[in-house]
Amino acid sequence: MTSTATAEDLGTRIEEALRRRFSERSAAAEHYGTEFVALWQAAAEHALGGKLIRPRLLIDLLRSLTPAGLTIAEVERAIDVAVHVELLHFAFLLHDDVIDGDLIRRRRPNLIGSLVERRSTEPAEPALHWARSSAILMGDLLLASAVLGFARADVSSDARTRLLALLEQTIFETVAGEHTDIGLSDGIIAPDLRTILSTSAYKTATYSFVLPLRAAAVLAGSSPAAEEQLTAIGRHLGLAYQLQDDLLSVFGDPEAHGKDAFSDLREGKETAIIAYARMTGHWPSIELRFGSMDLSVADASDIRDRLRECGAERFVRSLVQEQLGAVSTILGEAESAGTISPAAGRTILGLTSRIEGRTV
Amino acid sequence: MTSTATAEDLGTRIEEALRRRFSERSAAAEHYGTEFVALWQAAAEHALGGKLIRPRLLIDLLRSLTPAGLTIAEVERAIDVAVHVELLHFAFLLHDDVIDGDLIRRRRPNLIGSLVERRSTEPAEPALHWARSSAILMGDLLLASAVLGFARADVSSDARTRLLALLEQTIFETVAGEHTDIGLSDGIIAPDLRTILSTSAYKTATYSFVLPLRAAAVLAGSSPAAEEQLTAIGRHLGLAYQLQDDLLSVFGDPEAHGKDAFSDLREGKETAIIAYARMTGHWPSIELRFGSMDLSVADASDIRDRLRECGAERFVRSLVQEQLGAVSTILGEAESAGTISPAAGRTILGLTSRIEGRTV
Repeated sequence: MTSTATAEDLGTRIEEALRRRFSERSAAAEHYGTEFVALWQAAAEHALGGKLIRPRLLIDLLRSLTPAGLTIAEVERAIDVAVHVELLHFAFLLHDDVIDGDLIRRRRPNLIGSLVERRSTEPAEPALHWARSSAILMGDLLLASAVLGFARADVSSDARTRLLALLEQTIFETVAGEHTDIGLSDGIIAPDLRTILSTSAYKTATYSFVLPLRAAAVLAGSSPAAEEQLTAIGRHLGLAYQLQDDLLSVFGDPEAHGKDAFSDLREGKETAIIAYARMTGHWPSIELRFGSMDLSVADASDIRDRLRECGAERFVRSLVQEQLGAVSTILGEAESAGTISPAAGRTILGLTSRIEGRTV
Repeated sequence: MTSTATAEDLGTRIEEALRRRFSERSAAAEHYGTEFVALWQAAAEHALGGKLIRPRLLIDLLRSLTPAGLTIAEVERAIDVAVHVELLHFAFLLHDDVIDGDLIRRRRPNLIGSLVERRSTEPAEPALHWARSSAILMGDLLLASAVLGFARADVSSDARTRLLALLEQTIFETVAGEHTDIGLSDGIIAPDLRTILSTSAYKTATYSFVLPLRAAAVLAGSSPAAEEQLTAIGRHLGLAYQLQDDLLSVFGDPEAHGKDAFSDLREGKETAIIAYARMTGHWPSIELRFGSMDLSVADASDIRDRLRECGAERFVRSLVQEQLGAVSTILGEAESAGTISPAAGRTILGLTSRIEGRTV
């Protein structure tokens, strides 16, 4: 029996599996007091309702790598692995927000912000400490859950070994990227273009793109050669995605992308755009106001214009094209070699065009 | 072939396995830049050189649960699991230190303190942010490693399932205990005696005592009944240990136990001693100075004397005896029922008397 679920069905099913996971944990939390239950419930609210990009990518690719169709049991197994990829993502977000001191994500309070809001009648300092500590602990619980989920995947022993190696490498590399990213923002690591590009790839591409693609390959029983090609594809896609994100924050429409206008410029975020601008004669005039939290819209618009004039925008757009071009090249080789099916190639190209035309 | 390693050998072998693990990771870190390598090396320095109480407990109990002796392969397997118990411990310590804002542990700089020291010529705020963020990330890496280590244990599929369930419960309960403990110190959860006792059991007993004892039982192939009895024994032992720790901090000799004299009183730590004192008429005179960071030695000595007079010391010492008595009772029942061998009983009683006579 094969499954013929549509894309909407799939989203619903992933969401349901995720919701079930949080309900189970909230129920188990009851033994440990109301505050621990409240933390689980708050975490569930923030983890649910997302776009589920990573789990969807995993299952979309798995479907297209399996032309004969997936059995219902195979879909369930894949949803289970995909849910743990999403839990890993949420664990990373929580610790990122603690490290960055953020209380807001996409204009809404994040978990920390909402825990602080609940204690708005109490002294601010312990309320903030409680909220941040809670986010560290919830991140720990979800990180451990993600690894346990992979460890318990209902697959062959060989596939589980491959999944665990993949997850280990993913966590190591993501954390390495995050560590360098903090070093860049704390002024401890020099912001050269090469470091910034590799940091983006490690911090974002590895777990958001390489992990779902390779996990799909393992579940589909693809060859190590295919897995290797998907690793390279995931890196290029992820880097293109991150560079587009950087471009949107400076040159995009805040009404559309939903982030604070120019937040990267206010925070002094070391992006590829900035790394390029540093190497040009325009830098002294940009540097003066770059990274000041009270940057006016007029000043930010002026910086944006200078980043355009100095060629940084054009350069980063060309990098995006380069990454997406590399994806096409690898896909072409993989199709000729028969390592990745044309259907899987189309799934990946669909993603490529979504990244290319991204405005949100 | 059976192994006849002595206690010193065992400590050396655990230490070596732990060192090997850190060396491998430091080598893998090289690909990600010098700062990431430096973080791994600093973490290794802090993780090595400890007393290895938890891994030793696991292996001591496993040996006494296996009268026929362990093969060399079985010892290696047990050391591998024990090393991951130690990594979990270190991961918890790191996140604890971040949450508590501590830079010192046992009068020496902890990982955060030593990372700050390396940047002593730089502005303090980014150096501290960098150090704390690094500790969050290293905690994540070691937590994930601990779970991966259990997932990869070279044991039967049934034993691995039991080990993973044990680890999941351990992490969940430890984090629940830590969460409540933070709520107590932030004034969000009421410090009644019952909450404080269960928090101590969850936060310390579960991973420091229950986990090594039960893991040994699983590796020895003991019955679920034995595992259940060891769970109860671990809780009582761990609670006794924590209560002794609280007693030492207030009534012990700081020259011997190595912590700052009266640090619990300065930090306003909600212990069973304090919870008892709150219920007595002496509390108003204690409360005035309890939890003030500039508490003088004279004032602290005065509080100590009042905690003695109000009966808090006697009460908590009786709680310790109660916990240790409960261990003897369970052991007696287990020996009669044949679920835990006399040799294993002796190992546990040895631990009981070490906790009873503890001065450091």
